[in-house]
Amino acid sequence: MATSVDSRTGLPVVAMVGGGQLARMTHQAAIALGQSLRVLATSPDESAALVGADVRLGDHRELADLQRLAEGATVVTFDHEHVPTEHLQALVDAGHRVAPGPDALVHAQDKLVMRRALAAAGEPQPAWAAADSVDDVAAFAGEHGWPVVLKTPRGGYDGRGVFVAGDVDEAADLLARLGPLLVEERVAMVRELAVQVARSPFGQVAVWPVVETVQRNGVCQEVLVPAPGLDEGTATGAQELAIRIADRLGVVGMLAVELFETADGVVVNELAMRPHNSGHWTIEGSRTSQFEQHLRAVLDYPLGATEATAPVVVMANVLGGAASAEGWTGPGLDERVHHFMAHWPDVKLHWYGKGQRPGRKLGHVTALGTDLGEVRARAVAAARYLADGVVDDAFAFDEEH
Amino acid sequence: MATSVDSRTGLPVVAMVGGGQLARMTHQAAIALGQSLRVLATSPDESAALVGADVRLGDHRELADLQRLAEGATVVTFDHEHVPTEHLQALVDAGHRVAPGPDALVHAQDKLVMRRALAAAGEPQPAWAAADSVDDVAAFAGEHGWPVVLKTPRGGYDGRGVFVAGDVDEAADLLARLGPLLVEERVAMVRELAVQVARSPFGQVAVWPVVETVQRNGVCQEVLVPAPGLDEGTATGAQELAIRIADRLGVVGMLAVELFETADGVVVNELAMRPHNSGHWTIEGSRTSQFEQHLRAVLDYPLGATEATAPVVVMANVLGGAASAEGWTGPGLDERVHHFMAHWPDVKLHWYGKGQRPGRKLGHVTALGTDLGEVRARAVAAARYLADGVVDDAFAFDEEH
Repeated sequence: MATSVDSRTGLPVVAMVGGGQLARMTHQAAIALGQSLRVLATSPDESAALVGADVRLGDHRELADLQRLAEGATVVTFDHEHVPTEHLQALVDAGHRVAPGPDALVHAQDKLVMRRALAAAGEPQPAWAAADSVDDVAAFAGEHGWPVVLKTPRGGYDGRGVFVAGDVDEAADLLARLGPLLVEERVAMVRELAVQVARSPFGQVAVWPVVETVQRNGVCQEVLVPAPGLDEGTATGAQELAIRIADRLGVVGMLAVELFETADGVVVNELAMRPHNSGHWTIEGSRTSQFEQHLRAVLDYPLGATEATAPVVVMANVLGGAASAEGWTGPGLDERVHHFMAHWPDVKLHWYGKGQRPGRKLGHVTALGTDLGEVRARAVAAARYLADGVVDDAFAFDEEH
Repeated sequence: MATSVDSRTGLPVVAMVGGGQLARMTHQAAIALGQSLRVLATSPDESAALVGADVRLGDHRELADLQRLAEGATVVTFDHEHVPTEHLQALVDAGHRVAPGPDALVHAQDKLVMRRALAAAGEPQPAWAAADSVDDVAAFAGEHGWPVVLKTPRGGYDGRGVFVAGDVDEAADLLARLGPLLVEERVAMVRELAVQVARSPFGQVAVWPVVETVQRNGVCQEVLVPAPGLDEGTATGAQELAIRIADRLGVVGMLAVELFETADGVVVNELAMRPHNSGHWTIEGSRTSQFEQHLRAVLDYPLGATEATAPVVVMANVLGGAASAEGWTGPGLDERVHHFMAHWPDVKLHWYGKGQRPGRKLGHVTALGTDLGEVRARAVAAARYLADGVVDDAFAFDEEH
């Protein structure tokens, strides 16, 4: 039960650290629940700051800013993992509700902590070791072979902080530059999967279908729902794995479990404890979106139904492309949105309002239907048009339109 | 093509007069399109003011407030019909885009103007006359019989401004109190229907399925989608009627056409030129919601697909009930939301954040499925629980839950 509510509405106030697109879409969900998300943003031009009624400007690394955010809020939660654990603990010690709590969140902040916890739980994951020195890496590679994957334990996202080292010299360079690392075997994977699960303090869980994530350069490009051709045993096993992890780590809110599918089954790649790019499809594709579910979970509300609203859903990210580059002379954003709407009247747009820069996640689109090939072609062509302002031959449309 | 955009996002700014729940839900839709709705609210506690980033406080009857709202906006639109026509004309004369324009909107503001226009167009409507005096009403009743319906031409909504007079004395009282009225025959109706249609300045139209609206005391209680048992000819005819009216009146944005179904077909009861309660079901029930479509239409964006997402959709309003009354000692709002979520995990909540008062529209719920009886029971029971805090015997649930 919520302990503090907005006196104007009689309903809770969720405070979210971070003003990116995840907070923006969480605010959308909050509106339906009678709430208004409070966000801590670093700039008034951030994605969520542009649309929210209760925006606090500040630094998520400053305890004082976090304290001001938490004051009067029912619960504090996150759109990223970058808040220092000691600050979270200070908020908890001051009597604030923090969800997920620092003991859970650390597993999404620190990959070494996550690997140790999964090992203790006996969950499937790639072979790994802590690598403080080149000797550590060499010993690991001696057992598991080159190349190896080296990761900074903290601070990485969207492929940042992840490196492949082919030999001792490359490993030495990385260690010299980045300090102690996590070393992992390079998994012979078939593809990448993800599972979203929500968990409330009461212990209720809700899980969505397993999805396939299509990555390029470490960045998610497409999400295919459900994961095409996945056998039911593997799918159920992956959902059960996600639920076990959520329980074991005491997650409150959304947990995204990113998986590698291998010839021998799935292994855990990464964890995120917040709404996640691999779950954006739930806005239209599920009875309850991950954003609404995150709010329900952190407030200890009962969770919503996760049934699918269509047999096939495809989400495609719009990453800043040719149309975001210097010197672009093609159609501007507003004109591209016009053409997008004319050509794909049934593809749903989610534009984050951020400044356009090459490679930046600017928005996403979602298509629904029954035939994977058709739905995927529609979503990918629409996203590509928005990003690059040109129509790929493979998805040419009637120019007369 | 939009003529002015937000320099931070490169996308248009829609300004909406009125800060009620329609503006609130339009802001939700705007967020997905990369926009942030600008609203003119009369108080910071209004429904949309609680959640919006760009809230202007002011009076929609003051031209200066309207001018400040319009400054820098791509287009000005409305969540109610109460802006004086001369102010709208002044905005147009100053070069602002206003959608719908004053010449169209007047048909939703003044029922006499609407009746004259539909008569000139030869569209089906109840017999009617302008009634400046008791003699006018008596003459009308002489032809069409008592009782008659008397309406204030301007300012009514949700059944306000609508009266039934059984004889000359009752009519005289109303005229003395309210001034010149519109008199209409009391139609022998089977039920009430509604059609939503959107129209863009370009002339594109998009229409949704005909719905049945269940009213009590002139206030919409439920919307059943599609209208149960409606024959296809009548349904198509009603959609074509709505499109003709939108075209004829030059509507830009959403038009709701409220109809009476009679033994001889449909007749037009009322028009609204904005998102309307009879279209709230489109948020989950249609590929494009009326709120997104209104934004697309007033911006002259191409319109979105209106295909249904489920065979049956039922929307039920939550009107302030027992739980909003003085002296209520049952579960508070936040507790009722908990129980609502526990018992109806697949019913979608839309809470407007307004102060609770008996009879006030506080929110709505939407249920989707395949069997009308089942879907309707679910929606109505959920709305009733939120309003009254008690569970109707007919919809009893397991108290152990």
